[in-house]
Amino acid sequence: MTDEATMKAAMQAYIDAFNRSDAAAIADLYADDATVEDPVGSPPKTGKRAIAEFYQMAVATGARLELAAPIRASHGKAAAMAFDVRLNMPQGRAHIRVIDVMTFDEAGKFTSMKAYWGKSDMVLEQ
Amino acid sequence: MTDEATMKAAMQAYIDAFNRSDAAAIADLYADDATVEDPVGSPPKTGKRAIAEFYQMAVATGARLELAAPIRASHGKAAAMAFDVRLNMPQGRAHIRVIDVMTFDEAGKFTSMKAYWGKSDMVLEQ
Repeated sequence: MTDEATMKAAMQAYIDAFNRSDAAAIADLYADDATVEDPVGSPPKTGKRAIAEFYQMAVATGARLELAAPIRASHGKAAAMAFDVRLNMPQGRAHIRVIDVMTFDEAGKFTSMKAYWGKSDMVLEQ
Repeated sequence: MTDEATMKAAMQAYIDAFNRSDAAAIADLYADDATVEDPVGSPPKTGKRAIAEFYQMAVATGARLELAAPIRASHGKAAAMAFDVRLNMPQGRAHIRVIDVMTFDEAGKFTSMKAYWGKSDMVLEQ
């Protein structure tokens, strides 16, 4: 069942898995034929293998995710959340302001993820 | 040209027009054949007339929008923002936690809006 609480719990599980650098746990949140478009405007990754590889690279950066506001559900099979990606760059500490939108299947797995962030959302902190 | 700054300015103009109860100015931000799905999971409104009527009703509630985090752009023709809708209900002051995703045409007009919020995102403040 994909009710609002289930969708929000999956979104929070995504944040938590990322923050313990657990790429396999993130990939497990996705349906087998899911797509990931991160950032929106780039070619989507399709299927669990490509998605797992994407998150292995992502967590290897040591980045951490911090919700910027409570996770939103919807009246359909979709939810959205605003967060900041905190990371260390050669130039110093930085964050990227992101909004992720996920769609869900009946089992509560993500069928798609779209990450909205642009160059203007990357902020060098010092 | 639909660059990141242009998209973010249009999103901010949407917030500002709403907060002066200017439904016509909001409708002017949309392309003629745009769609509005608010909330996601409900039947979309299509075309400028239906969209203008929707916002006339929305601003008549006296609701006010407050950004919950900075507006996000993307690497494509889309942007997203998290905000709270503040309104007075018969039961008292309330807010609805929303994330809006807009897509854009070449002229910088919204071609679609999707509003992510569920029943669990409506919060009675007292």
